[in-house]
Order: sequence, then C-alpha cells, then structure tokens
Amino acid sequence: MAKKGKLVEAITSMNEDFAQWYTDVVKKAELVDYSSVRGCMVIKPYGYAIWELLQRQLDDRFKETGHENVYMPMFIPESLLQREKDHVEGFAPEVAWVTHGGTEKLTEKLCVRPTSETLFCEHYSNEIQSYRDLPKLYNQWCSVVRWEKTTRPFLRSLEFLWQEGHTAHATAEEAEEETIKMLNLYAKFCENVLAIPMIKGQKTEKEKFAGAKATYTIESLMHDGKALQSGTSHNFGDGFAKAFDITYTDKDNKLSYVHQTSWGMTTRLIGAIIMVHGDDNGLVLPPAVAPTQVMIVPIMQKKEGVLEKANEVKEALSKVARVKLDDSDKSPGWKFSEHEMKGVPLRVELGPKDIEKNQAVIVRRDTREKYFVTLDELEDKIVELLEDVQKSMLEKARIHRDEHTYTATSMDEFAKTVQETPGFVKAMWCGDRACEDKIKEDTGATSRCMPFEQEDIADVCVCCGKPAKKMVYWGKAY
Amino acid sequence: MAKKGKLVEAITSMNEDFAQWYTDVVKKAELVDYSSVRGCMVIKPYGYAIWELLQRQLDDRFKETGHENVYMPMFIPESLLQREKDHVEGFAPEVAWVTHGGTEKLTEKLCVRPTSETLFCEHYSNEIQSYRDLPKLYNQWCSVVRWEKTTRPFLRSLEFLWQEGHTAHATAEEAEEETIKMLNLYAKFCENVLAIPMIKGQKTEKEKFAGAKATYTIESLMHDGKALQSGTSHNFGDGFAKAFDITYTDKDNKLSYVHQTSWGMTTRLIGAIIMVHGDDNGLVLPPAVAPTQVMIVPIMQKKEGVLEKANEVKEALSKVARVKLDDSDKSPGWKFSEHEMKGVPLRVELGPKDIEKNQAVIVRRDTREKYFVTLDELEDKIVELLEDVQKSMLEKARIHRDEHTYTATSMDEFAKTVQETPGFVKAMWCGDRACEDKIKEDTGATSRCMPFEQEDIADVCVCCGKPAKKMVYWGKAY
Repeated sequence: MAKKGKLVEAITSMNEDFAQWYTDVVKKAELVDYSSVRGCMVIKPYGYAIWELLQRQLDDRFKETGHENVYMPMFIPESLLQREKDHVEGFAPEVAWVTHGGTEKLTEKLCVRPTSETLFCEHYSNEIQSYRDLPKLYNQWCSVVRWEKTTRPFLRSLEFLWQEGHTAHATAEEAEEETIKMLNLYAKFCENVLAIPMIKGQKTEKEKFAGAKATYTIESLMHDGKALQSGTSHNFGDGFAKAFDITYTDKDNKLSYVHQTSWGMTTRLIGAIIMVHGDDNGLVLPPAVAPTQVMIVPIMQKKEGVLEKANEVKEALSKVARVKLDDSDKSPGWKFSEHEMKGVPLRVELGPKDIEKNQAVIVRRDTREKYFVTLDELEDKIVELLEDVQKSMLEKARIHRDEHTYTATSMDEFAKTVQETPGFVKAMWCGDRACEDKIKEDTGATSRCMPFEQEDIADVCVCCGKPAKKMVYWGKAY
Repeated sequence: MAKKGKLVEAITSMNEDFAQWYTDVVKKAELVDYSSVRGCMVIKPYGYAIWELLQRQLDDRFKETGHENVYMPMFIPESLLQREKDHVEGFAPEVAWVTHGGTEKLTEKLCVRPTSETLFCEHYSNEIQSYRDLPKLYNQWCSVVRWEKTTRPFLRSLEFLWQEGHTAHATAEEAEEETIKMLNLYAKFCENVLAIPMIKGQKTEKEKFAGAKATYTIESLMHDGKALQSGTSHNFGDGFAKAFDITYTDKDNKLSYVHQTSWGMTTRLIGAIIMVHGDDNGLVLPPAVAPTQVMIVPIMQKKEGVLEKANEVKEALSKVARVKLDDSDKSPGWKFSEHEMKGVPLRVELGPKDIEKNQAVIVRRDTREKYFVTLDELEDKIVELLEDVQKSMLEKARIHRDEHTYTATSMDEFAKTVQETPGFVKAMWCGDRACEDKIKEDTGATSRCMPFEQEDIADVCVCCGKPAKKMVYWGKAY
C-alpha cells in the first residue's frame, strides 16, 4: 500500500490504533468536519447523503407501519421536564439550559431537548380523550442535545440527529406489542439496509431508560470487538400517563390511563457502518446507503472515444443504480484510492482496450474481486453485484461477530476473555445489581442485553455462584 | 352553512375577523397545537405532511441545481457570532442564549442558531483553499430560533423550520448570478407547487439582511390584502469572507476572497398557503402539497357492495394520486365538512345509485363544481382535474393579487389606499431612508421590494417630490 499512501493521504492501520483509524476515516472519507462548538460536528455532504438515504428508508418503514411524522418544540420548560421523577433524574444532569432570550433573563429556564417524552406527553394529554383517539403513532426527526464530557463524531456528540417514535395505546398488551414490533423493525432495517447483524434483547434494570418500565435494545459488534448499542425501544407502561394525566374513556365510558412507548435511532448508525465494514483502505459502504453505488473511472480518458463511451455507460447504468463518472484530471490510481476511501461499492474501469473488446472491468470494494464483463451484460451484472455485495457484507459481519462471541462460566475466564479476545461474552447472571456492578469493576464489561434467544450455559451466576436467572451478553461498549 | 356549523365546529368568517379565521383554520384543520413553550408550535401530522411534501419538492430542485445538503451545529459561540459586525447587531438582540451545560456554567455562552452564516463561514474557511474547491453549493434543513415578542403559528414563531442555502464563489458575478438564480427557483416553486404568484425584487437598504450587500425577495399578497415576505436570497459580496478570512488561490496563484450568498424559505409558507387559498369552509390545498389529494366518501356505506366498490376505486386511483377512503361511521355530510376543512382538493362520492349507473361524483374543493363521471373514465378525470385545480388556484390568486394592487402618486392617495383598500401600493421613491420611514409612519406600509419589473408611474417621489429613482411595492405586511 506504499504507493497508495502517496496518492491519497494514508490512514492509520486498524490494527495499529483503531481509534485513530476511525478518526482518520471520518475525516478522509469527508464525512464530518470539526467546528468551534465543542463536541458538535459539521456533517459534510458525503456524510449527510448517507444519513439521508438511511433516513428515507427508515422513514418509509415507519409510514408503512402506520406511523405519522410530527414536529415538537426544541425547548422544554424546567417544570415540564420535572413532571416524571425518574426521567428528570436521568436527564437533568446532561442538558443545555437556555436562561436568556435576547437581553432578557427568562422567568423559567428552558432546556434544549435531550429527548422529547415530556413534550409528547403534554401534547397527548390535550389530544387524547376517547378510545377512538387511540392508538397515537407519532414519530419525529430532529436533533437533540446531551452535554457529554468526551465526544467522538457520530458515536457520542453533544448534538446528534435522530428519530424518536412516541406512541400511546389503550392497553398494556398493545404497548408491549408496539415496543417489540419497532425493535424488530430496527433489527431488520439494520440487517437489510446497513448490513449489520443485531442481537435483540432486553436491558437490565441498571441500563434501562430513565422512566421506562422495560427497555429493549439491538446490539452490534464493531470490528475491534467493542459493542455498540444501535437502537432502543422502551415500554413506559402507564408511568408517564400518570405523571402527565393522559387518560381516555373506553367503550364502557370508563376512564383509563394510556400505555406508552418510545424508540429511537441516531446518526450513531453511521459510526456503526464505519466500524463494522471499514478496512485499512477506508470506508466500505453497503450499497443501500451508498450515495454513489458505482463509480466509473475512465482509463486513458484523453484517448478519442473513451469519455464518450464512459458517458454512455453512465447513462445506461443510471437506470439501475446511483452512478457517477469521475472524469477529473487526476490519475486513475489516485481515483481508485479516493473512491475506495469513500467506500463506493463498485468501480467500473473503462479504457481504450476494454472498448475495443466491448467490455468493462468491475472491481468490488468489499472483496476487491475483479470481473471482466461485456458491455451488453454490464447493466445486469451491476444489479447482481450490488445485491451480492449487500448480502455478503452482512454475512461477513455476522461471521466476524460470531467468531468474536465467547462464553464464560467463571470470573477468571470472563476477565481473560475481555482482555485477550475482545468481543461479546455470554455468561449467566443471577439478576442482582451487585454482580452487574462487580463484573463491570473487575472486567470493564457492561451488560449489553438479556437476549430474547436465551441459552443454557450454566446453572449459576458467573459472578456470585447463586442460581442464574438469565443469560446475558456482556462487552465493552462505545 | 348553518347545518355545517353543527357538523364540524364552525370557524369564524374571514370577512368578520381574518386573524381569528386564521387561528381557527390552523386549529380545526389540525395543522398545529400549542404547547407550554411560549411561541413554539407543535406541528401535527397533517401540518407536517404538508411540510414534507413541500420540502421534498424544494429539495429535489436544490439537488437538480447542484446543491448538496449538510448539517451544521445548532449552537454558535458568542465570539463566532460577533465576527461580522452588521450581522451580530442584527441578530444578537433576538437570540436564545445557552449559559449552562448540565450543572456547569459555560465559560463562553452559546446562542441557539438564528441563522447559520457564521458556522458556514467558519467551515468554508477550513474547506476552501484553491479555485478547484469552488463553487461550494451547500444547503441545510433545520430549525432556528428567534426570540420574537408576539408570535403566530407558521407566520412568526420563536422556533421555525426552514432551509438555508449557503454558497461560496470565485467571483462577484457568479455570486450575483447564484443569488438571482435561487430567487427565481423560489418564485417558480411557489407558483408551480404552492399556486402562489410572487413579485420578485430587491429589498431597500433599510430592509436588507444584516450583513448582506443586497437582499432579493419574493413577496406575495394574502387574502386580507397584507403582504407576506415568502423567501429571500442574499448576496454577501466578500463581506463575510473578509470577516472570516475565506480566501482561495486562483489559477495564477493569486489570493482572493470568495463571494458568498445565502437564501432561505420557511414553514411560514404554510401560513401563505392558508391565507392565499383558504375560505370560510377552511383550508384549500394545492394538489401538489395536499397529503390527501382525493378523498373517497362512500354514501350509504352499509349497503351491500358499496365499500367493496369504494375500495376498488381507491386501489385504481392510488396509481395516479394520493387517495384515501373515509369509511368511518360518521355521516357523509360530516365527512364532507371535515375534508373541506382540511382542504382536500377532490372528493369522490360513491353510493348505491352511482354504482348502478357505473359512475361516481367528483366535487372540487376550490370551486365546489360537481362532475358526474363514469367509473371507466374516473382515473383520467382525476388526473385532469388535479392539474386543473392546481392551475386555476394559481390563476385565482393572481387575479386577486392584481385586483388588489394599486398605484399612488400622492401621499393622500397612498394613505387612503392603504386604509380603505388593503393590498400592494405601487409608488415612486427617491431612494432616501427618510421618505421610507415617513411613509411607514404616515400609512403603516413598509417597502416590500423594488421590483425587477419597474414601471414609470411618475417622475417624483410620492413622499418628498424629489426626482424618483425606483418604483417600489409597499404594503402592510405579516
């Protein structure tokens, strides 16, 4: 790769320093820039285009399942934030406070929303009267602010973009059903669109959302063996309804509290894409969210007929994919490196000799395989390969995750696994917070989730030896 | 309409109290709800669906003209806001200030963006080095905050949604070209999508944007004769570039400042749709931004075969329009009023007798015309009518505007026109700020713009009698 290093500024190798590799990719693939606002990022055109593709496909799925988009204010008055006790305790320490409007001091300070449960609840208490008004299936796309001490682009930033679904239902059963349904929708979306396999499960009491009855999560494994919480879905029961007095009259004219859920995914998913699929040449994008799926690089483009043919090919391929032609005056080698850095799934090379043979060369970003294809078959082959890349990226990520998932039946084994072979550790747990705390203290791993698919690894808690209640996925996490 | 009054809660008549009519429509058509955050609105599903349609079509036009979306932080450090002198003077008095993060007092307070020139400039100063980096054609969709004293949904709110384009160019000519190009794009969008005709022109010195060299505007006329500034496009020259040190080296290796523009449109456009097209039965939506373009209302829906046929019709029409079927247990009359209130462009009535005759009844929302159409021709007729509604709404708005555009050659005539026949007043102006101020003081009208299409109404300024420089559109404005 020495030659490439000269062409496009080299990035740190993953194995050498994963954190630096991540920072390099984020910058060199032109996803973000830093700004003078601590912990906030500028999402550049290429990064934002990925977000738009992700957003549109997720939004389509929300709409297909009957959800409607709304927009709530970005400010929450202090008194409103305080209505639900657990919720305010969880969020108040990490919010930004607006204390002045223009030159005037506000009589009540406003926080910039860290999440919008309180605003949705206030709205629902106005909107919901009868069982006819239920369910309410709302979602909002916006940015939220959490005053984090240490930040990293996409993974943890003061401000981030996200969607937050907020629903209200007549019964506890319907709320639970919605919570699980959205978790499943998230997991499928991540697998089919982002090519990232997920572990689905429930968070422990310690890790659940402030104010929730139950929090469900999807967890993925990054290339360095660390876990990433990729989306959560909360069942609130009627806790918020009681705090905000959200009631409805049922068919028998009886007054009841609604049951609520919320669920969210964020720009952090872009961090997951980078850390699951990337390699030492940069980003590797799943075709479904690649702003450019096919980059055509002409070879000896000054030779007569090359650019004409390349443009023809571009026209033809535009019908089946997001295609660009790089006819800049950089060298082909430079272009190869640049588009590899940006993770473009397929490259099409086309030079005078190819044209003579009525063929083109396709190179996959994920496996670097080369295909010589006649121009007549090019369109079909591109469609086929884009599908194949999407599938094999998921498969590769699944294999990586499975190969980095371990079991531990003793604390020694647990600690050794975490230290020597980073990944998920499956281990039994008694259900006590004390053991959860001790495991974190001794190994650095936190409970990621109690997976829906339980396994019977042992009879007793890996930590205290008392009878085990749950098999838990543990891991160091972002 | 007495009967209707019983069905759907009556709204105030436009002629009786236009402001109350507006508030009623906004509530009864389920566009917004109020919240406990002063001056901020909850945009409900129906209102947000209009925004999404508007946004998508505008965004497509931005992308077609080579613009790319990005996302900037929502906070601006005080020192950054202060970099351009006119800009900070214009905005500092109306921003929300974040002074605390969690429990800590910030060393430098941050304002919530009222607009993002300063952030884009900071970013451009990092990104732009050479003429190869130009032009930069960026846009962002976000919400901004301005600390307004009095607020009204969509028209003037503390927080509103908008897009802000920010571009950087090599030369003054290119920047001016972009400024005008985007103004024209805005005007075309408003005419073709929102069915609202626009006057295009330049703002006076007094009314231009804080920090701009020149501000261009599109102005529309509401049903009550008041003007609404509907979009603006600013040429910054190299003022911001000098304040933020944004330079590039040209082909001859000479260092130059870039020339910049910005342009924006907001959720206020929904206010314009309401006030230009609405009537005493509620909202009237142009088909291009109607979440539901065709509402099917079955008559005697419990009769065998009616709902089946209605569903069949819905299936068929779904191919050519956004169609819904209202099969709720409300009466047809109630449904008619409800969907009229929400401005659905076309209603299709289908009852047992219609089915017998193999026909349906179409009713237009804008003109209330009725059409009896055979089911075989229904699809074509719907397409034809949607196009016709879109066109005639624009035509009707144009006629209303032209009929409410007056000329004045004396101050008496000017004041009388403003008082007795609200609308645009065209009058000559010497170019002095003093006259502009006096006209406002004496008549309540402000200069809306110096239109590109100048007319020679008189030789002298309507106010001072000195030689006139420009014909100006004046009016009371939202």
